[in-house]
Amino acid sequence: MKPLVLSMGDAAGIGPEIILQAWARAPQDLAGCVVLGDLAVMQRALAVTGLGSALTLSPVPSLEAVAGLSASQVPVLTSCELSMPPVFGQVSAEAGRAAGECIVAGARAVLAGRAAALVTAPIHKEALSAAGGEWAQFPGHTEMLQAEAARHLGRPVSEVPVRMMLANLQLRVVLQSIHVSLREALERITLPSLLETLHITHAALSRALGRAPRIAVAGLNPHAGEGGLFGREELDVIAPAVEAACTQGLRVSGPYPPDTLFMRARALAGQPQGFDAVVALYHDQGLIPVKYLGVEDGVNVTLGLPLLRTSPDHGTAFDLAGTGRADPSSLLAAVRLARQWSELPALQA
Amino acid sequence: MKPLVLSMGDAAGIGPEIILQAWARAPQDLAGCVVLGDLAVMQRALAVTGLGSALTLSPVPSLEAVAGLSASQVPVLTSCELSMPPVFGQVSAEAGRAAGECIVAGARAVLAGRAAALVTAPIHKEALSAAGGEWAQFPGHTEMLQAEAARHLGRPVSEVPVRMMLANLQLRVVLQSIHVSLREALERITLPSLLETLHITHAALSRALGRAPRIAVAGLNPHAGEGGLFGREELDVIAPAVEAACTQGLRVSGPYPPDTLFMRARALAGQPQGFDAVVALYHDQGLIPVKYLGVEDGVNVTLGLPLLRTSPDHGTAFDLAGTGRADPSSLLAAVRLARQWSELPALQA
Repeated sequence: MKPLVLSMGDAAGIGPEIILQAWARAPQDLAGCVVLGDLAVMQRALAVTGLGSALTLSPVPSLEAVAGLSASQVPVLTSCELSMPPVFGQVSAEAGRAAGECIVAGARAVLAGRAAALVTAPIHKEALSAAGGEWAQFPGHTEMLQAEAARHLGRPVSEVPVRMMLANLQLRVVLQSIHVSLREALERITLPSLLETLHITHAALSRALGRAPRIAVAGLNPHAGEGGLFGREELDVIAPAVEAACTQGLRVSGPYPPDTLFMRARALAGQPQGFDAVVALYHDQGLIPVKYLGVEDGVNVTLGLPLLRTSPDHGTAFDLAGTGRADPSSLLAAVRLARQWSELPALQA
Repeated sequence: MKPLVLSMGDAAGIGPEIILQAWARAPQDLAGCVVLGDLAVMQRALAVTGLGSALTLSPVPSLEAVAGLSASQVPVLTSCELSMPPVFGQVSAEAGRAAGECIVAGARAVLAGRAAALVTAPIHKEALSAAGGEWAQFPGHTEMLQAEAARHLGRPVSEVPVRMMLANLQLRVVLQSIHVSLREALERITLPSLLETLHITHAALSRALGRAPRIAVAGLNPHAGEGGLFGREELDVIAPAVEAACTQGLRVSGPYPPDTLFMRARALAGQPQGFDAVVALYHDQGLIPVKYLGVEDGVNVTLGLPLLRTSPDHGTAFDLAGTGRADPSSLLAAVRLARQWSELPALQA
């Protein structure tokens, strides 16, 4: 079985700590994982978490050298250059670059077929920007991974469209747009783009579930527009996109009134009449319900890439870094989801 | 103690049934309530719910004639004209008019100081419209109550601004706008209007809680705009409105990132560091989290009126009417909230 690679994230943040805490909490889930990072950073994380008696770090020369390690041995593959561990909680250009190098190493390992999936610990946007050069052009993980994927596929980045999915035990929500103003998000609800969201969702979840997913699309307006009374986007754009997707063989329904759709999807999770994913039309429409019961188990998945990548649903938490008090639950959920999805047999195209 | 009045709602819907079911389920909470409706309609509801052995209907000539009834006697004050009970589940002009008459009777009783609060069972918009005449001008309860309040106060309706609040055991959410398109909702986020929302919320909850409420305001854009990066409404309108409200002595904070505010408000419900209410900037921002765990205990409260009015958070459910299977939980929660709020001593202005 191929290893799962874990990029350590920004070394001034909680990434290295939560990786070790997840390992100590659930060694059976972390077996077969390899940390892509820096040994001194991981040694410091071992010290601040007080896990030195439970875990040992094992420097490995390659991904293939993991076999034979015990559950308490954490393989660390040096994947970046770092003169020394950065000060906790401070933006560091060197830490930003190092974090980026680990992500690129992880992406290339998965794209080359040497690792099953990439789980990314949090990075800091400002540190990446401070790193300058090519790093500064990437607002975050997603764009970096898109660039790697495009290079791998020999296509322009614009031909590697991605969507963000947030998942917990009750909901899987795919977002039509993310970090743009609500006004801009409204402009991005077009028939081609929504249809693209549906196809990306269908393809990714088909692979993950081993069957065609049942996708529910949220409306945009109160009561999904109530027949045009409160807005026409449902009639003019959303319903036609749903219809087009169905014609193309996808299992899509909606648009549904947003205020009750997420409640229904949650209540019916795992039921035969339920939905496998909900497409939300803007950032907060999807994230308010996903986060409502807590962010501990939320996992972020980038859909549309030719590699499987998951991440915890939180940031670097600079205020907690070095305290050993950060909660590894979301990272652990990201590892479990990556493992679960990567072990399913691929569907025949 | 003044009685609570319950308008029976559209007689073709589930209103009459859920009133009796709530009564049978929690007679101690319904003690002191009077049904404003039609005796034949309530008799039919008694039959379809099979509650004839548990409850009896007691026609009363006035609100003051309730004293001395037992917990199983349901006082019914005839408050409308209806030739016969309408067919279940069908839009009826006569039922629409009758429902309207009961609401007006209830509003007038509270405004005249003869009842403590009005709890309204669901009405049907199309039936009200079919009733024609002055009834057809009202899209729903709120506008009807605004008109009655304006008449009572001797002011134009425009000077009786109201806001809708949805409350359950964990969240109280006040909506900046309700039944308009999301695009129109964006236009309605202005400094004067948001400040009005904050003052209405403050005044209503001050009366209800006996102290100044702690009000949290949601942002509009992802991450509350992230310093202007994803939209400027937070900087240009929302933060200034919060600041103005604070200057005027209100306990208001925000704008907070929408995707985690409702989670925080829920998790901190009842805690010293929690919020008493969240102001949501559009319909679904507030209603997605309020409804996420189920609508059973959701209560709708109209804030800003000179009378206390609550209602269940659902409609007439024409498909269930006459089956005796509708869930009275939300109506019961509305009765309990009305009672709780109306029994608190008024604050000194």
